[in-house]
Amino acid sequence: MPTLLHLDSSPRRGSVSRQISGEFAQTWRKTNPDGRYVYRDLTADPVPHIDHAQIEVMHRLEAEGVRSLDVARGAARTPEEEASWAVTWPLIEELLEADTILLGVPMYNFSVPSTFKAWFDRVLIAPLIADPATGQGPLSGKKVVVASARGGAYGPGTPRHEFDHQETYLKAALGMVGLASDLTFLHAELTKSAHVARLFQFQEMAATSYLAAIDGARTHGEA
Amino acid sequence: MPTLLHLDSSPRRGSVSRQISGEFAQTWRKTNPDGRYVYRDLTADPVPHIDHAQIEVMHRLEAEGVRSLDVARGAARTPEEEASWAVTWPLIEELLEADTILLGVPMYNFSVPSTFKAWFDRVLIAPLIADPATGQGPLSGKKVVVASARGGAYGPGTPRHEFDHQETYLKAALGMVGLASDLTFLHAELTKSAHVARLFQFQEMAATSYLAAIDGARTHGEA
Repeated sequence: MPTLLHLDSSPRRGSVSRQISGEFAQTWRKTNPDGRYVYRDLTADPVPHIDHAQIEVMHRLEAEGVRSLDVARGAARTPEEEASWAVTWPLIEELLEADTILLGVPMYNFSVPSTFKAWFDRVLIAPLIADPATGQGPLSGKKVVVASARGGAYGPGTPRHEFDHQETYLKAALGMVGLASDLTFLHAELTKSAHVARLFQFQEMAATSYLAAIDGARTHGEA
Repeated sequence: MPTLLHLDSSPRRGSVSRQISGEFAQTWRKTNPDGRYVYRDLTADPVPHIDHAQIEVMHRLEAEGVRSLDVARGAARTPEEEASWAVTWPLIEELLEADTILLGVPMYNFSVPSTFKAWFDRVLIAPLIADPATGQGPLSGKKVVVASARGGAYGPGTPRHEFDHQETYLKAALGMVGLASDLTFLHAELTKSAHVARLFQFQEMAATSYLAAIDGARTHGEA
């Protein structure tokens, strides 16, 4: 039974990234009527920022070179660590159980929203990191789709490409845990052309970009 | 009367970035006995993630081309917007009142901690953005010091330089609001060499890097 894990991180209700991820999810569920669908809204239900206690556990895992997830699961020692680890571990289980991971991640100030980073910093524990020797880790082989909205245009060749710390960041960060080998970005760009006067001239490009992202969501959702 | 705004964002008590920012703050306060010192710990007292209501206000400011901070201050309309704006505005006032801004920002998973991003996404409103024509904005001219800790080495020429979405990100993001013209990074690198076996060989480099950062904090704190 295939499992889709769908996360949204836009602070906005009805946002563009939510429209794209929603299109993917709807298509996937039609295509996989017996599939399991898990939804987590990081805005409605934010993951608490990583804390001192989790870092204590993570440092021990790193110091002891722990690669086993079973050992890691039982690694909390103090009540403070137990409490923090109890927040984190269900998020890790969700990732492990998913075949497809759908991330709704708009660009905010050149990077990812703080809600997404809070989730990512919680789940990125040492035993999930791909082995540098083999390039493989417990999450390797999963399909990842990023549903993204960006106020401007940041693709290769644009004047603002060097300010892209969203796609380039996610490639590096997801790659650390083996999640960049089947990674697709669906960007709707120039969303600010809807309300910022100097960008009105780009509304047609924005519409084209949006339709391509929605279309990509359908195509990838059916695959 | 000079004012120092000191923010820390490390989730760890006694962390390396806190040691460096602490050294700067202590020196600055000795050098400026009549100065005003404002401290905000983004871990102990996290800024709520940006929300739908603030984005509604920000979109109106952008749509109307508002450049006046006084107009922006009064721009919330609904009770939900008023509540969100009341969270954000004191953070903006703090920035405006500071002459020197000291940011304790460790690298987490190649980027900044989620607590820092939550703060940054709140304060970055359109009227603070530097005018592209003049490069000047309401925050221009302030001195910014980043006290940073990184598990590995990410400087130019290192194999992991392309994964640096902390310094490169902060330069781009702070530059947007005119805060990159007097911007200093004090990095203590290779902090993971203290507990990760394969990095033990770099402990001397880590010690050198740490001492240079502490020394830089003293020098810049006296300036």
